[in-house]
Amino acid sequence: MDRIKETIEDIRALDSDAMEAASARQDALTKPRGSLGVLESLSVKIAGITASYKPAVANKVIITMAGDHGVAAEGVSAYPVEVTAQMVYNFLHGGAAINVLARHIGARVVVVDMGVAADIELEPVEHRSYDFINRKIAYGTANMTKGPSMSYEDAERSIEAGIEVLEHEIEKGVDIVGVGDMGIGNTTPSSAITAFITGEPVANVTGRGTGLDDDGLVNKIRVIEKALEVNNPNREDAIDILAKLGGFEIGGMAGVMLAAAAHRIPVVIDGFISGAAALIAYELSPKIRDYLIASHLSVEAGHRAVLNYIGLKPLFNLNMRLGEGTGAALGISIVDASCKILREMATFEEAGVSEK
Amino acid sequence: MDRIKETIEDIRALDSDAMEAASARQDALTKPRGSLGVLESLSVKIAGITASYKPAVANKVIITMAGDHGVAAEGVSAYPVEVTAQMVYNFLHGGAAINVLARHIGARVVVVDMGVAADIELEPVEHRSYDFINRKIAYGTANMTKGPSMSYEDAERSIEAGIEVLEHEIEKGVDIVGVGDMGIGNTTPSSAITAFITGEPVANVTGRGTGLDDDGLVNKIRVIEKALEVNNPNREDAIDILAKLGGFEIGGMAGVMLAAAAHRIPVVIDGFISGAAALIAYELSPKIRDYLIASHLSVEAGHRAVLNYIGLKPLFNLNMRLGEGTGAALGISIVDASCKILREMATFEEAGVSEK
Repeated sequence: MDRIKETIEDIRALDSDAMEAASARQDALTKPRGSLGVLESLSVKIAGITASYKPAVANKVIITMAGDHGVAAEGVSAYPVEVTAQMVYNFLHGGAAINVLARHIGARVVVVDMGVAADIELEPVEHRSYDFINRKIAYGTANMTKGPSMSYEDAERSIEAGIEVLEHEIEKGVDIVGVGDMGIGNTTPSSAITAFITGEPVANVTGRGTGLDDDGLVNKIRVIEKALEVNNPNREDAIDILAKLGGFEIGGMAGVMLAAAAHRIPVVIDGFISGAAALIAYELSPKIRDYLIASHLSVEAGHRAVLNYIGLKPLFNLNMRLGEGTGAALGISIVDASCKILREMATFEEAGVSEK
Repeated sequence: MDRIKETIEDIRALDSDAMEAASARQDALTKPRGSLGVLESLSVKIAGITASYKPAVANKVIITMAGDHGVAAEGVSAYPVEVTAQMVYNFLHGGAAINVLARHIGARVVVVDMGVAADIELEPVEHRSYDFINRKIAYGTANMTKGPSMSYEDAERSIEAGIEVLEHEIEKGVDIVGVGDMGIGNTTPSSAITAFITGEPVANVTGRGTGLDDDGLVNKIRVIEKALEVNNPNREDAIDILAKLGGFEIGGMAGVMLAAAAHRIPVVIDGFISGAAALIAYELSPKIRDYLIASHLSVEAGHRAVLNYIGLKPLFNLNMRLGEGTGAALGISIVDASCKILREMATFEEAGVSEK
């Protein structure tokens, strides 16, 4: 718990001097003021986060955290549980969507086993193209319709693991981090967390996940309502909420976000699951908002409620709902573009272009 | 005119076999069906355009066409006319937004003088980093409040020049092309074309361009209404519409679009000005729609009417209104990502991942 507290205490306000300097530079660049819209405001936010008026986000990392969920036994997912581990292998072999999109934007992918319900057997290092970190808390969470998903201590451990994963990556260089998830069944804890924290009715923030039919959706809503009733978390204690309704990868992603903010590194969140992690991080420290960039608006029903609650606007909406960090990857590319505009464009004076 | 006719005759329907094969492959990739949303449908469209079920868009080109406008004398722009030529130099030195974003996505920029009101004096080739093509039709158009912007023959010449520019670039390799514009005053002809073709009232499709104030906007609307009244184009002849209300860069971009479609190359349009060019191309050949990808929704008022009329949905809205091809560049990156997903992801079978 000390590790979490210390990290939260290290989160500072945005650097307003850097933001003013970045904003003044945007106004001096060879384009009508404001004509690059969100690319301009985004670059100013990154200046504030990084305390640099000409920020660069060259070192890009996607941290994809995997975990299994006891609640999957309630039939809340269209896919069988073994898919979580199978997809981890797919990540390690470079065949998943996040691998493709990370290569597209020039990011490295770090796959973290936060609690997969199987041992991940690694190939010898020389055959692997992607980083893997084993921070397994347990072989999946417990079934939250019958009690807490995990103990209070394991909830703390999952957040601490996320902090340590990010700090380990910082040693290799991280200018921007995207967070993503893999976990069969994990829209269910995410909807539970979202309903509990935002106060929205469960039915409003529960979607079809990987592809439930109508009956499946009705069952999923009932399962979440039961989990809320059985567990009754302490509204004032985000770690209790995570313990009772969460998942190990959700706690891990919350830890990555807190640590990134503490180290002035911008964090690009992905879709609904990383959004639920952002809710946990936000309840632990509302200052985190300034360090978060929402990439896309997910198709998954609860995502809008998450972003509205925290006060974030997504950059785009491409009707995606895959997770893994896929939306975050595309979002990082836009952040990168915004910083390059700020760094690389000529000013009116440099280019000899007349002003208004 | 023969050149334009021949090009239009070469535009074929999308390849439905390639689209079916691409769609089947998307369904076999390791993700829930449809979970990558627009990235999936976009890749299928590119398959249809390129007649390949695993299309690649490695060779990326942004064609930025510049021209001046006689109507600028009516006070319709916040910037002086000499900025068009100054910005062309900025493009050639790599300091403009389009240079930055083209580098970001790995595209080359081809700058075309379609009708700048000054001679562009080039540095020796060894000092230039960007391609420049001189296809100047005239030193700016005439003032369309007093008669046609250009002769019917010059309108044809501008479209033919666009066709030839694209075909010249094909020799160097073009898998995807983005079109962009530079021309002080060119939102005015674009609004005139949009109002005339879509039938929308001028006030609904006229915006502030580079930054007009309220009085400037009122004047601009009056100027456009006068141009429509004075010129009265033939609704059945898109070349007459271009001649009476257009600009040389608008005709050039329409030519690029027609030639790209004829050669089965996807065309990513930028904002409002390239949208007006797309309207001209669409009136010449409605089949062009299948080859067009709308990148962003511009802040400029008339852009939505353009896209609705043609029947295109923009990929994103980042409140941009710069032109030059900046939105197209970001759009090309998304198209590229969609094709990489289709080409590079593992299937369920290849990765040994269980299906539903």
